[in-house]
Amino acid sequence: MLLTRRFRFAASHRLHTSALSDQENRRLYGKCNNPHGHGHDYVLDVTVEGAPDASGQIVDRLKLEELVQSRVVKELDHKNLNLDRAEFQDNVPTTENLASVIHRLLDSAWDLPAKLKTIRISETGRNAFTLDL
Amino acid sequence: MLLTRRFRFAASHRLHTSALSDQENRRLYGKCNNPHGHGHDYVLDVTVEGAPDASGQIVDRLKLEELVQSRVVKELDHKNLNLDRAEFQDNVPTTENLASVIHRLLDSAWDLPAKLKTIRISETGRNAFTLDL
Amino acid sequence: MLLTRRFRFAASHRLHTSALSDQENRRLYGKCNNPHGHGHDYVLDVTVEGAPDASGQIVDRLKLEELVQSRVVKELDHKNLNLDRAEFQDNVPTTENLASVIHRLLDSAWDLPAKLKTIRISETGRNAFTLDL
Amino acid sequence: MLLTRRFRFAASHRLHTSALSDQENRRLYGKCNNPHGHGHDYVLDVTVEGAPDASGQIVDRLKLEELVQSRVVKELDHKNLNLDRAEFQDNVPTTENLASVIHRLLDSAWDLPAKLKTIRISETGRNAFTLDL
Amino acid sequence: MLLTRRFRFAASHRLHTSALSDQENRRLYGKCNNPHGHGHDYVLDVTVEGAPDASGQIVDRLKLEELVQSRVVKELDHKNLNLDRAEFQDNVPTTENLASVIHRLLDSAWDLPAKLKTIRISETGRNAFTLDL
Amino acid sequence: MLLTRRFRFAASHRLHTSALSDQENRRLYGKCNNPHGHGHDYVLDVTVEGAPDASGQIVDRLKLEELVQSRVVKELDHKNLNLDRAEFQDNVPTTENLASVIHRLLDSAWDLPAKLKTIRISETGRNAFTLDL
Repeated sequence: MLLTRRFRFAASHRLHTSALSDQENRRLYGKCNNPHGHGHDYVLDVTVEGAPDASGQIVDRLKLEELVQSRVVKELDHKNLNLDRAEFQDNVPTTENLASVIHRLLDSAWDLPAKLKTIRISETGRNAFTLDL
Repeated sequence: MLLTRRFRFAASHRLHTSALSDQENRRLYGKCNNPHGHGHDYVLDVTVEGAPDASGQIVDRLKLEELVQSRVVKELDHKNLNLDRAEFQDNVPTTENLASVIHRLLDSAWDLPAKLKTIRISETGRNAFTLDL
Repeated sequence: MLLTRRFRFAASHRLHTSALSDQENRRLYGKCNNPHGHGHDYVLDVTVEGAPDASGQIVDRLKLEELVQSRVVKELDHKNLNLDRAEFQDNVPTTENLASVIHRLLDSAWDLPAKLKTIRISETGRNAFTLDL
Repeated sequence: MLLTRRFRFAASHRLHTSALSDQENRRLYGKCNNPHGHGHDYVLDVTVEGAPDASGQIVDRLKLEELVQSRVVKELDHKNLNLDRAEFQDNVPTTENLASVIHRLLDSAWDLPAKLKTIRISETGRNAFTLDL
Repeated sequence: MLLTRRFRFAASHRLHTSALSDQENRRLYGKCNNPHGHGHDYVLDVTVEGAPDASGQIVDRLKLEELVQSRVVKELDHKNLNLDRAEFQDNVPTTENLASVIHRLLDSAWDLPAKLKTIRISETGRNAFTLDL
Repeated sequence: MLLTRRFRFAASHRLHTSALSDQENRRLYGKCNNPHGHGHDYVLDVTVEGAPDASGQIVDRLKLEELVQSRVVKELDHKNLNLDRAEFQDNVPTTENLASVIHRLLDSAWDLPAKLKTIRISETGRNAFTLDL
């Protein structure tokens, strides 16, 4: 059985890579390449897999909440991804790469009996990215 | 191809197990252990799998609607899960266990040609439980 | 200018009045009269009115958050309205009456410069109640 | 990794098949068989699968947008599916069949490096159809 | 106090007026002038105003439900507004005019003690029309 | 009658005023004072008031769309409000002040027969600001 729990955070970013010319950056990332950045309200869905134990739960809600809040939400909420996070010094903060960063933040601290199964992150209401682990 | 159809019902419950002390119950279930119970507006998504027949449908909508309404919604809507349902006499009415009960209610009455594939139930807008069958 | 801030809580209730016969209660409240109660995920929108001050805000977000959480959400979340709240000893816990109770809880503690303007509470996704103050 | 991008269009249709009598059509399709048709606001989710490239993206957003808009949205938006689309001359425009038509429209023009993985289309807020490719 | 109750129906329409040339119709109504029509999932919010009576309700839910279902939803759901409704023989079925028609349907049958206050109808998720009475 | 049309844009900002000490800024704006800024997906609802004309519309949809897109969305979408907009050089980009800026952008270019009535802007899904004109 799967449990998906929803979290929210707000952050800003700019999509730009030094591997390309300014013109190529503008073509590739469009408005997301605007020099001073922009931001989103991100919606993060964390899915864990397990079987209900004697308490009828596949995971302790309070422990899951505490883990994701302390390792992900507190780290990313109200931050500038390019300037505030070392992971994006040489790594464009696309939502794809953000999903991978969130995976590593959770995976390195994971101590719950249920399995971390899927990370889904969406922005703008039109784009959602799913990382099946 | 999959069809997911959405249903809604409201119910109350209290999370408490006689296998644990009162203090352990409070630690484990938090506010959900409050003595007099609380409630939710549950959203139930039933997914069936099949191939479209000559009518262009993988399942007869009216039959699916009638089956889920009579076997699940009518049985659970506006009920107290602990006091009104025999399934929760010795079984904590977590949403995980509720998903299993809904599966049994549907499976025991299932007479549609499409396969019952997934039950997904969410509450509070933050937690969703998926049972893949 | 108006600011509307959204809060959520879960509670259970039963609609029944001793002023009517059991049969009249069933006719009037329908499923909401079921003896053991049921519950909802309530969505509460609190609207305040004011002019932005030098900080560009019509109200201090942290103070508004703290006031509504401590006076309303903490008081009602995961509670049985009939059994846990003195306001509903002689008062049917309809959503109309719940809106009035929330108004009194906020009004008696209100110490913010912005004016408390509207309370809106919805349940089941189909019914919303608005109290213009 | 998966990217799901959301599109919207409005169309009308009538469910009726010449293979059945008028009475059987009414029984099978219910209100959807009403002679003059009705309509929906369709929500289309297109999911593609791939690995992020050096730009941090699994697909070029602008190319995906252009492809789906030109091949699907422009073709179906504000149309009568029965009268405006050759695919539904001998094929009942159920949402199941509409999903298959959208798959063919995208598949025949697909020139993106990411794989077309899933098409999901919903209407009325209660029914969603998923075609895993 | 206000109660807003939500209803849904699906219908099709074409925007075209014989008072204008075909070219002017196309300019004015854009895609909505497409000859064979299109459709929407309409969301209707009916707001009534009153004071809670001894039962704690400003209106009997079952009576409000029955009135709107029988007078509006049953009349418009799964219909072609241009061809199935006499109100739109000489009247373009814009959502503005649809709101007025719904007002007349409700007003002519209104026998509830609460006052009919506002009709709000939305389509496509982007446009909502509000008629304050 | 009122028409409310919904628009979306993404932007970043930092809340900080030179009139206060760093410590006071942190106390007042909380996380929104983080030095490198953050961002949101803003939802903008523009409401106009008028009576339906012979075409059955209170405003020409295409003209309203073009006006708001060119004067507001194009100006603010994917921008850093502090660095990209002159209005926020001496003016903290709170959502309250953003609502006033949007009002001035629309009002200075307004040439539609319907009256500009209300601007509502929300972020994070929890806060909405309404400016009644």
